[in-house]
Amino acid sequence: MESEQRPNERTVSQLGEFGLIRRVTAQGTGSTNTLLGPGDDAAVLAAPDGRVVATTDVLVQDVHFRLDWSSPHQVGRKAVAVNLSDVAAMGAVPTGLLVGLGCASDAPTELVDGLASGMREEAGLVGTDVVGGDMVTSTTLTISVTALGDLQGRAPVTRGGARPGDVVAVAGRLGWAAAGWAVLARGFRSPLAVVGAHRVPEPPYSAGPLAADAGATAMIDVSDGLLADLGHIAEASGVAIDLHSDRIGVPQRLSEVASALGANPWRWVLTGGEDQALVASFPHDAVLPPGWQPIGAVTEGSGVTVDGSEYAEETGWQHWTG
Amino acid sequence: MESEQRPNERTVSQLGEFGLIRRVTAQGTGSTNTLLGPGDDAAVLAAPDGRVVATTDVLVQDVHFRLDWSSPHQVGRKAVAVNLSDVAAMGAVPTGLLVGLGCASDAPTELVDGLASGMREEAGLVGTDVVGGDMVTSTTLTISVTALGDLQGRAPVTRGGARPGDVVAVAGRLGWAAAGWAVLARGFRSPLAVVGAHRVPEPPYSAGPLAADAGATAMIDVSDGLLADLGHIAEASGVAIDLHSDRIGVPQRLSEVASALGANPWRWVLTGGEDQALVASFPHDAVLPPGWQPIGAVTEGSGVTVDGSEYAEETGWQHWTG
Repeated sequence: MESEQRPNERTVSQLGEFGLIRRVTAQGTGSTNTLLGPGDDAAVLAAPDGRVVATTDVLVQDVHFRLDWSSPHQVGRKAVAVNLSDVAAMGAVPTGLLVGLGCASDAPTELVDGLASGMREEAGLVGTDVVGGDMVTSTTLTISVTALGDLQGRAPVTRGGARPGDVVAVAGRLGWAAAGWAVLARGFRSPLAVVGAHRVPEPPYSAGPLAADAGATAMIDVSDGLLADLGHIAEASGVAIDLHSDRIGVPQRLSEVASALGANPWRWVLTGGEDQALVASFPHDAVLPPGWQPIGAVTEGSGVTVDGSEYAEETGWQHWTG
Repeated sequence: MESEQRPNERTVSQLGEFGLIRRVTAQGTGSTNTLLGPGDDAAVLAAPDGRVVATTDVLVQDVHFRLDWSSPHQVGRKAVAVNLSDVAAMGAVPTGLLVGLGCASDAPTELVDGLASGMREEAGLVGTDVVGGDMVTSTTLTISVTALGDLQGRAPVTRGGARPGDVVAVAGRLGWAAAGWAVLARGFRSPLAVVGAHRVPEPPYSAGPLAADAGATAMIDVSDGLLADLGHIAEASGVAIDLHSDRIGVPQRLSEVASALGANPWRWVLTGGEDQALVASFPHDAVLPPGWQPIGAVTEGSGVTVDGSEYAEETGWQHWTG
């Protein structure tokens, strides 16, 4: 009897599809936005604003995460975090998540349990839930997450509204996940401050709606790197952006790690993605909400510069071509 | 110059991630529900009802489709159809789609173009659009689709509302996709009537909202097989369902194909999934809407029977355990 209870000895195949769906979607936080939860053809969520924000991101094993670097729980948190930060970057609050999971039929159930518990923990940080999902067999562990959100009456903050004269500001961390990646790639497992940042980003979720309320003219979450993502704003808005390096700075901890590795911490700060910070432009006379720090200015022209000059190193991680 | 224009010679890697996203989401039908389309952190869709229906399904190459049996265009249509039929099964109309695509970096762009054009064609049948997406590199071709819908003031039709005395009815085809699968599995490529049904289902999208308006008490789309999916309704509703075989019948074409293959067409009709028909229960005095045919009755008890007896053969295709 005892052996039947040991989760390590059960596989996804033994559990069956419907058992799996229940595992990922069970034990939610009981969000009031969930009008009809898992178990039917579709979920029904509240959309009190009359509009719904929707975004999807897919994570693939050994492309976006490594299970020798991160636990399933950490991967689950990250898969949800990268989607929730997209919702925040529109100025919205999350209302629900759907998860598509592809994994091998002989995968241990503790893998799915770990992913599921991580997803639920991250969702719980913003009071939302996994409300639906699909489980399929695949030789490649694949996690597809869709996040929905409510604008609560706000206009969505797009990438295209930055205007010359605007202030550029950031909320959240820059370069920490990249530093953690560099540490892990060298075969180290510490310092945990940066390794943990790679494993589980800490997006400043509430900073998104706060920025929208403060009049943010454009906003994006930093997933490809600060310069690359501000480049998206500059292009969509038809403006130039100049960053002030003395306003950005390099955290002491990153300098120490960079020194130990013989690396350039500025490169992590300016081009490292995956911290899911939020960057936005605000009218020059706006009062920046708590958590937002000015780091530059919007001007006429095109492109992104640092202290008036083009940054020489690569400006972000391109999937496919990288 | 000419060689640069030949799509066969370009790969996903050469196109780059952002080019790919544009390919899948471009040239939509211009749905009025799309308030903010692709190209930002998230899409914004109208949710006039104040609630949003949301569902996700993942298709994996050589698990859910084979590219030697179906074209990329057909796979794209099917990936969207299986999601749109879930929206219809709630009594809702689709308002938008998000697509997560994982494919090899050396995949030809015509694969992505074919998938994308198929998705857009199927979405166009119900006046909706692909409004967002994510493209990632993966060794396993994986298509994750999320469909959103609007209830237009209707109560969602769940699986749990069937009551003894209700009539059970079906809209759409039963057994055709299973027959097509059987033909393809034997190495044949015709008759196209059934092979085509396997490649691209024809869900009766409008029958879902019509059923809701006619008072349907429970509804589901047939993806696992008629008996298996009615089993979900029976279980969720705490009732028994008895089907009347003379009301269901076997289409002449399926009998011919079965005869040629030495197969049992009843098995296709009762246990074949993937036609994405809709089955629902209605109060006994309801006027069934156009396209709906009565095939059985809800009674006290549990389980699903045919002419009062349990159907002997397997009752549906279980992923993982099948």
